[in-house]
Amino acid sequence: MSLEKTKAGGDMDRAFTTLFSLADGKNPDRSSTKRHLAGVKQMFMDAAETERILEKENPLVYEFYELGIPSHAGDLAFGTSITYPGQVAGEYYMTKGHFHEILKTAEVYYCIQGHGMMMMENPEGQWDCQELTPGQAVYVPKRFAHRSINVGDEPFITFFCFRADAGHDYKTIETKGFRKIVVQKNGKPEISDNPRWLE
Amino acid sequence: MSLEKTKAGGDMDRAFTTLFSLADGKNPDRSSTKRHLAGVKQMFMDAAETERILEKENPLVYEFYELGIPSHAGDLAFGTSITYPGQVAGEYYMTKGHFHEILKTAEVYYCIQGHGMMMMENPEGQWDCQELTPGQAVYVPKRFAHRSINVGDEPFITFFCFRADAGHDYKTIETKGFRKIVVQKNGKPEISDNPRWLE
Repeated sequence: MSLEKTKAGGDMDRAFTTLFSLADGKNPDRSSTKRHLAGVKQMFMDAAETERILEKENPLVYEFYELGIPSHAGDLAFGTSITYPGQVAGEYYMTKGHFHEILKTAEVYYCIQGHGMMMMENPEGQWDCQELTPGQAVYVPKRFAHRSINVGDEPFITFFCFRADAGHDYKTIETKGFRKIVVQKNGKPEISDNPRWLE
Repeated sequence: MSLEKTKAGGDMDRAFTTLFSLADGKNPDRSSTKRHLAGVKQMFMDAAETERILEKENPLVYEFYELGIPSHAGDLAFGTSITYPGQVAGEYYMTKGHFHEILKTAEVYYCIQGHGMMMMENPEGQWDCQELTPGQAVYVPKRFAHRSINVGDEPFITFFCFRADAGHDYKTIETKGFRKIVVQKNGKPEISDNPRWLE
């Protein structure tokens, strides 16, 4: 009888173990999905400043892992999300953010490194923003879109878990944005109304 | 607009943040459920040695946190589990282990400290045992009972997440045990058949 690990694969009737380093959030055995500035430039307020940055470089804004867990209501998808430190005209680097397609499914993020915020809003206009530092777990309620924002100086890393069939609706946020934005003012993160938000 | 944290409560339509320290797994704002040896003595093989230990002390074998997330299929329960280092006649300290009442629900454990194993088995007799060290995440498939076992010298700490309505069936394991046990042999963990296991 061996302690040999079974490998992750399509068959989710088998247990598996996979590494998400507590030091950098990376999984050495898998490829992450990477979002560089050019691909997410619409989400930042200052289009001119975004273009000025892109003339020089195309920095990595965030990356995350998908394990390909089949979409089943009894299954769980999990992995890490790494949002890098940086700003565009004072607006912090962040993820695109999304609703779940099955709106009534929650998500949990456990911060393992960095300093960030989880911005959340539901279709009725309620919003919440929770600050995260290492060891803090945030509960994202059912029906709330959510976005990770790095307000610190090092990578903001979370371990996340959600129902595997929840699905991702990025489109609504891409079109409307979030109601609130987080911008650095006097060296500190400040939440304010999103002037571009579309009712 | 403040960044003040909302408090966890009965209303799971609200976001909240809560700390599970990466240093010791503890949540300073909540009480854990604690399992001392006297309360879980039936799970160890050597009853005589268990009684000898209990004559002198009643050590803490493991503890875990419950947040009281309402039992809803779209919700997630989460927290930390801390299994302490120790043995009873070579058999490592472990959790009672359980099936989910809704059998077809998975669970994810993310190891943040220590050295442990996740022992798993399904009603059909398939079993698996995955080794965990910090940064390793283990996927526990639907239909598999699971138990944490500390095979190291420091607390074995995991952050766990499961569907909030999954429920816990401890009875089946209490009655039948797991098919396999993990006992120290020549200073190393070894998996062997459980002689007390009831078909």
